Amino acid sequence: MDIYERSLARHRETQGKIEVRSRMRLESQEDLSVAYTPGVARPSEAIAEDPGAAWDLTWKGRTVAVVSDGSAVLGLGDIGPMAALPVMEGKAALFREFAGVDAVPVVLDAREPDEIVSVVKAIAPSYGGINLEDISAPRAFEIEDRLQDIGIPVLHDDQHGTAIVLVAAMRNAVKVLGRDMTDLKVVISGAGAAGRAIAHLMVPEGDQNRGAAVGQVRICDSRGILAPGRDRQDDVKETLARRTNPDGETGSLRDALEGAHVFVGVSRGGLLNGDDVRRMASKPVILAMANPIPEIDPAAAVVAGAAIVGTGRSDYPNQVNNVLAFPGLFRGALAARATRFTDSMKQAAIDALVGCIPEPTRGRILPEAFDRSVPVKVAQAVEAAAREAGVCY
Amino acid sequence: MDIYERSLARHRETQGKIEVRSRMRLESQEDLSVAYTPGVARPSEAIAEDPGAAWDLTWKGRTVAVVSDGSAVLGLGDIGPMAALPVMEGKAALFREFAGVDAVPVVLDAREPDEIVSVVKAIAPSYGGINLEDISAPRAFEIEDRLQDIGIPVLHDDQHGTAIVLVAAMRNAVKVLGRDMTDLKVVISGAGAAGRAIAHLMVPEGDQNRGAAVGQVRICDSRGILAPGRDRQDDVKETLARRTNPDGETGSLRDALEGAHVFVGVSRGGLLNGDDVRRMASKPVILAMANPIPEIDPAAAVVAGAAIVGTGRSDYPNQVNNVLAFPGLFRGALAARATRFTDSMKQAAIDALVGCIPEPTRGRILPEAFDRSVPVKVAQAVEAAAREAGVCY
Repeated sequence: MDIYERSLARHRETQGKIEVRSRMRLESQEDLSVAYTPGVARPSEAIAEDPGAAWDLTWKGRTVAVVSDGSAVLGLGDIGPMAALPVMEGKAALFREFAGVDAVPVVLDAREPDEIVSVVKAIAPSYGGINLEDISAPRAFEIEDRLQDIGIPVLHDDQHGTAIVLVAAMRNAVKVLGRDMTDLKVVISGAGAAGRAIAHLMVPEGDQNRGAAVGQVRICDSRGILAPGRDRQDDVKETLARRTNPDGETGSLRDALEGAHVFVGVSRGGLLNGDDVRRMASKPVILAMANPIPEIDPAAAVVAGAAIVGTGRSDYPNQVNNVLAFPGLFRGALAARATRFTDSMKQAAIDALVGCIPEPTRGRILPEAFDRSVPVKVAQAVEAAAREAGVCY
Repeated sequence: MDIYERSLARHRETQGKIEVRSRMRLESQEDLSVAYTPGVARPSEAIAEDPGAAWDLTWKGRTVAVVSDGSAVLGLGDIGPMAALPVMEGKAALFREFAGVDAVPVVLDAREPDEIVSVVKAIAPSYGGINLEDISAPRAFEIEDRLQDIGIPVLHDDQHGTAIVLVAAMRNAVKVLGRDMTDLKVVISGAGAAGRAIAHLMVPEGDQNRGAAVGQVRICDSRGILAPGRDRQDDVKETLARRTNPDGETGSLRDALEGAHVFVGVSRGGLLNGDDVRRMASKPVILAMANPIPEIDPAAAVVAGAAIVGTGRSDYPNQVNNVLAFPGLFRGALAARATRFTDSMKQAAIDALVGCIPEPTRGRILPEAFDRSVPVKVAQAVEAAAREAGVCY
């Protein structure tokens, strides 16, 4: 059996991946009176008097909903809410196993951003945070933006989780090569959810979030460099173009690669060849995230002169895996009782990941996915940043 | 510390009552590949091809959402969604402990029936059933009615759970006394959620659900007997009046009690006295459910001639506790992959509860709340009735 058939068999055997357990004994009338009626009236009254008590007295303070409409699931695309459930359960299981966060899947039979926003607002009192997952762009951007003031942190992990880990990887790669972040020219291939979030972290707005700022970013889609005023360009790309490329440089991906120090691929497999790598500055960094086939084969990239190569895959060195970010991000936000994720909390997560590898090498710019100290460190940094930002309940 | 303070302390200690656990090991890259990417693509594809596979491959087939807007919580009233969370968590814990059903609380910041209906429809693909809880009448009736065609069973437990257990109690009480159900005159005090559901079970529509039918039902509110055309009477009560009292008998609760065989109280404590009991037929049955103070003190009822007395309390004989019904109801519905609850499934639950006590006595007309064989028997009966009714996915 291959991995897919093993997965199917295992899912059937366990009827899914997560379960709900009682934390209180329920074996006697006394137990029932404490956990349920009549005793439960007291914690309910306490929360009615002070809503903040919900974080202490219920699961809210340790719970995240993993919300998806099933419109952009893995490489499978728009398979709908029910078919997305195994993926969301998987995410929930990872939350629990990697960060002790209790997470539940909530898959939605809803498609309009208005409706998804209403539903998430309505169910929000049940949870301490919302992880949006596998919602197609550009709807996901609008949905995430409109949910920022609901009183609990909301994060679209396909954007920010990947972006945080990737930027941490880039920072350690640059450190290995002794380069300066502010002199760096970075090319991002892919203007979807992850590409946009990576660009936002590298070209931050406001002076307080300069940690991951790089000298120059060019973001490319299948039509080449995003530039302001390019024809047939949607609002999201137009805004990205203005932010990253105010001078209006135009050209193809290949043009953009000339002299670039870093290639970030969040696009499609097999896009680059050795010649493309040779167009770049000497000893470039290649972070080729397309799954399952990276934008360039890591060995071919090295042959063409790449100094450091990372991919999304576990069978190559330097795996950029979002499991390094999201468990700690939410654990930290829950610990702080954060009402939102700020840019400073995301930068703190990057700093924590960078700090996990005090002496990075070409083959080790990120910690291992199974290093259980990582979510703890990320959570501590995110919690501190939330308190610093004063966004706690 | 009294029970309330013990409950508060215990909730603080465990930070609520339920938690989410992974059913799959996640300790290696292989584990991750089976539970999450890339392997999870296969169960997702299987569900995209055949939605029924979701019951086998995800938690859906064993999961119920306990949904409330916090508008009618215990005796506390309208305390809002967050303050309702401890009660819904308690219910979820009971589901798990009594029936092995994985249940999650979903408290809603929504008040209009339209909005609650939309939200529940949207989140429905995540679960195998919906338990509506502590939603105020008459909104709860409309909400439950409008959710009957969403493809999974939806039940407002405050109505049907209590009603099912109470009718089972009445049937065994009548059996002890050797009376015939069809000759019975029953008075229900309280025309709220439970009163309405009890009346529906005792005056069923359609010939196939005659199991709990009684000769005559009079339902009373604070203004006396519900009769068609009574002034200032809302639609819900008007419909109830037509169903139970087509001949238009009018009068007070005391008038209704004259010669009645059974009193069902779902109203308020201390409403009846010994004289009221003496108005009834000889050796009447008193099921006084008001909490924490029953409509009449059980001892006083016995002194006045009551043959059998039941209450909602665990410290008196014959506790009518809805924990006898809801765990088995949903477990059976999930096992059958039912798309709805039919009247025949509710009658099957009553039959199962009646059958739990083959030889009822005055002090024992219902099984104990902690008898773990009860949810199993109820579930088997409900599952069989669902298959019989042909309402399975």
